[in-house]
Amino acid sequence: MSNTNVLIIGGSAAGLVAAATAKSNHPDKDVTIIRKEEKVMIPCGIPYIFGTVETSDKNILPDGGLIKLGVNIKVDEVINIDKKNKVCKTKGGEEIGYEKLVIATGSTPYVPKWLEGASLENVFSIPKKKIYLDELQQKLQGINKIITIGAGFIGVEMSDELNKNGKDITVVEILPHILGLSFDEELAIEAEECLTSRGVKLKTGVGVERILGSEKVTGVLLSNGETLEADAVILSMGYRPNIKLAEETGLAINELGFIKADQYRRTGHPDIFAAGDCSEKIDFATGKLSGAMLASIACAEARVAGMNLYSLSTVKAFRGTIGIYSTDIGGTGFGAAGLTEAQAKKEGFDVVSGSFTGIDRHPGHLEDTHKQMVKLIASKDNGIILGGQVIGGKSTGELTNVLGFIIQNNMTINDLLVAQIGTQPMLTASPAGYPLIKAAESTAKKLKK
Amino acid sequence: MSNTNVLIIGGSAAGLVAAATAKSNHPDKDVTIIRKEEKVMIPCGIPYIFGTVETSDKNILPDGGLIKLGVNIKVDEVINIDKKNKVCKTKGGEEIGYEKLVIATGSTPYVPKWLEGASLENVFSIPKKKIYLDELQQKLQGINKIITIGAGFIGVEMSDELNKNGKDITVVEILPHILGLSFDEELAIEAEECLTSRGVKLKTGVGVERILGSEKVTGVLLSNGETLEADAVILSMGYRPNIKLAEETGLAINELGFIKADQYRRTGHPDIFAAGDCSEKIDFATGKLSGAMLASIACAEARVAGMNLYSLSTVKAFRGTIGIYSTDIGGTGFGAAGLTEAQAKKEGFDVVSGSFTGIDRHPGHLEDTHKQMVKLIASKDNGIILGGQVIGGKSTGELTNVLGFIIQNNMTINDLLVAQIGTQPMLTASPAGYPLIKAAESTAKKLKK
Repeated sequence: MSNTNVLIIGGSAAGLVAAATAKSNHPDKDVTIIRKEEKVMIPCGIPYIFGTVETSDKNILPDGGLIKLGVNIKVDEVINIDKKNKVCKTKGGEEIGYEKLVIATGSTPYVPKWLEGASLENVFSIPKKKIYLDELQQKLQGINKIITIGAGFIGVEMSDELNKNGKDITVVEILPHILGLSFDEELAIEAEECLTSRGVKLKTGVGVERILGSEKVTGVLLSNGETLEADAVILSMGYRPNIKLAEETGLAINELGFIKADQYRRTGHPDIFAAGDCSEKIDFATGKLSGAMLASIACAEARVAGMNLYSLSTVKAFRGTIGIYSTDIGGTGFGAAGLTEAQAKKEGFDVVSGSFTGIDRHPGHLEDTHKQMVKLIASKDNGIILGGQVIGGKSTGELTNVLGFIIQNNMTINDLLVAQIGTQPMLTASPAGYPLIKAAESTAKKLKK
Repeated sequence: MSNTNVLIIGGSAAGLVAAATAKSNHPDKDVTIIRKEEKVMIPCGIPYIFGTVETSDKNILPDGGLIKLGVNIKVDEVINIDKKNKVCKTKGGEEIGYEKLVIATGSTPYVPKWLEGASLENVFSIPKKKIYLDELQQKLQGINKIITIGAGFIGVEMSDELNKNGKDITVVEILPHILGLSFDEELAIEAEECLTSRGVKLKTGVGVERILGSEKVTGVLLSNGETLEADAVILSMGYRPNIKLAEETGLAINELGFIKADQYRRTGHPDIFAAGDCSEKIDFATGKLSGAMLASIACAEARVAGMNLYSLSTVKAFRGTIGIYSTDIGGTGFGAAGLTEAQAKKEGFDVVSGSFTGIDRHPGHLEDTHKQMVKLIASKDNGIILGGQVIGGKSTGELTNVLGFIIQNNMTINDLLVAQIGTQPMLTASPAGYPLIKAAESTAKKLKK
């Protein structure tokens, strides 16, 4: 039997950051990652393998940083946790004793049991496994007509990249609009326009009845009775937390199927932490359980776990999950942070919203200038900003992070009216027409009423 | 005599925003801008006239928004304010009565009195006047060898644009490094490397003794005895607030020569407000008078003035000036918010700093990926972030705004360690290697010691 101080199960975003944080904060401790994959995929980079990045070999999460820090990496699989004796058994036959354990087992594509035809040849999902993805890429080479089921971020990005690669793509989405969980309708419609203008076909507001074919897939039957032909189907219907090991260990699982974890990322057991897609999320605004899965959330949770392993700190506790998303569709960026207007209303918040459309550089005569739109959603009673959305150019990701920091700080519309920003012709909108502040002005008018 | 409810003197950034804010917040009031220029230059766009934008006609602050709001625009000059009777007299012979007055008279290039040769032919400054700039542009057409004196943002941007236009440019700066008031040395050196790699020559750490020539300028004598030849000299040695009118009106002027103004932007007189370059700034962190001049600061102050004209609101008060700057040198962005490390130490803060260099997209194999570096400066006793600096690509301006919001919210290094960000391959750094958070980790280590 070998021993390590901190054992981390899982080597993707959460595992990597938990290990790096643990080792940085406790250089005297022996920190070990145990992971199933020899080579780990950068999770958010996966769609780009199929177009821009060209190969999974260019999308590998580098081990260099961990090795430099002195983190041990083992490629193996934990099959049993003896939490009383603090020993993990592996598939490879090892026994590893630990002081502190972090479960970061990630998530797996969701394939609904009711979906007939899901196991036909050329029906794929998008797991975070290099071998599967390499095989998928190879198989798609000879195939032209592809249907993507599910238009969340992964579905949209995969479809756009495959389309870029010359494939004939149709996206089927049961919600009225693509990216419909992250964007309000008016922004989602613009995302749809971007996607279709690039040649991707959309079928929204319609579900899938079953996948057609005998051995190989031949098409998809939609819930409206329509049949779409296809040589391949890609299922991007979300992910489910990998909790089998935690469940078998007797750790508590929440109603959404995630491993329960508190603000320090402790599970019910004091020496076992959980972080990333497999672990519980509580929404920042609503206090309700959340199903958000993002590498950036996973990293934030893992950082908190790594810092609190040996001694808790109230100022290093997690403050609730804020979904901060962005994507790029053919050079147009779409970003969202916090609640959408529709979600906020559904949750029972009395909200107003305001938006402003300008440009992301100034003066407007500059080349490469992109439209920039900001929408803000604020509580009517106090003006606290609950969410925001952006359409823009290359600065969209960081402008979305501006929104994230505004939400994290419980800033109000009044705070934004007196906020200071920096502007520069080549890099931002103009100071007099900065869409974030103008959107706050537009929201302020509605708050007055 | 005519009457208006709100009279705004000055039509640049502050005047425009004060007018728009006043009219939006008080649609029933008659709002009038009186300005000297028929066509107003977008102030931060001025350097780009000499390269990228090509002509001042493409750098005009549009009047459309004001006209649409119903703001009156008069081209004339106020020469006297009778604050007892609340009447302004203009050069054009008009008398205009007002209820509330906003002074937004801006600033003028600083040309030191001791500088011999400053009035020689082909010695220029960079005022915000279209006619002057058009003439300057025309005169520079036949000229090749140009010396810029002063390497603040305007000096650097002008030099880079003129160089882009094929001119032979040397920049002379008395501080050890260019942009030395906004960036710490290690970042300023990188800005210098960007600028020189594009062909701009630098002479730093050396002052100007006098400008040489009899009628036309022929060169510059430096304080180290060296002579540089030149066919033209551009003075970019900063700006001074335009306060003559305020002074004559008996309004109080502070020690730095700005019109005194409180957190609502009221001058000593209850019905007279001041905003923009001409008006007092108090530094957010130090509480000391500040000389910062930026269109974005001007707009923030003007917004505050416009909202507080008829009734004060403590939640709509100005909270102290934060310098938030960014610029672009040949595709590399440089941004700074708050205090530099050097300034913070000089002011007496006990600070630590940390930095991290990564890339602005992920995986690193993507084309168009730019190095991204973030430096943070934090108080040693409480971890509050006093300043930050960025080097990066096209998202630098908005990432600098992230820093601005962090500073405005008095966030600490611990807050950043548990902060949530959004990341996306095409738009941002990776979640595990996001330079802002990694810089916070680096700073946290030093805070522990």
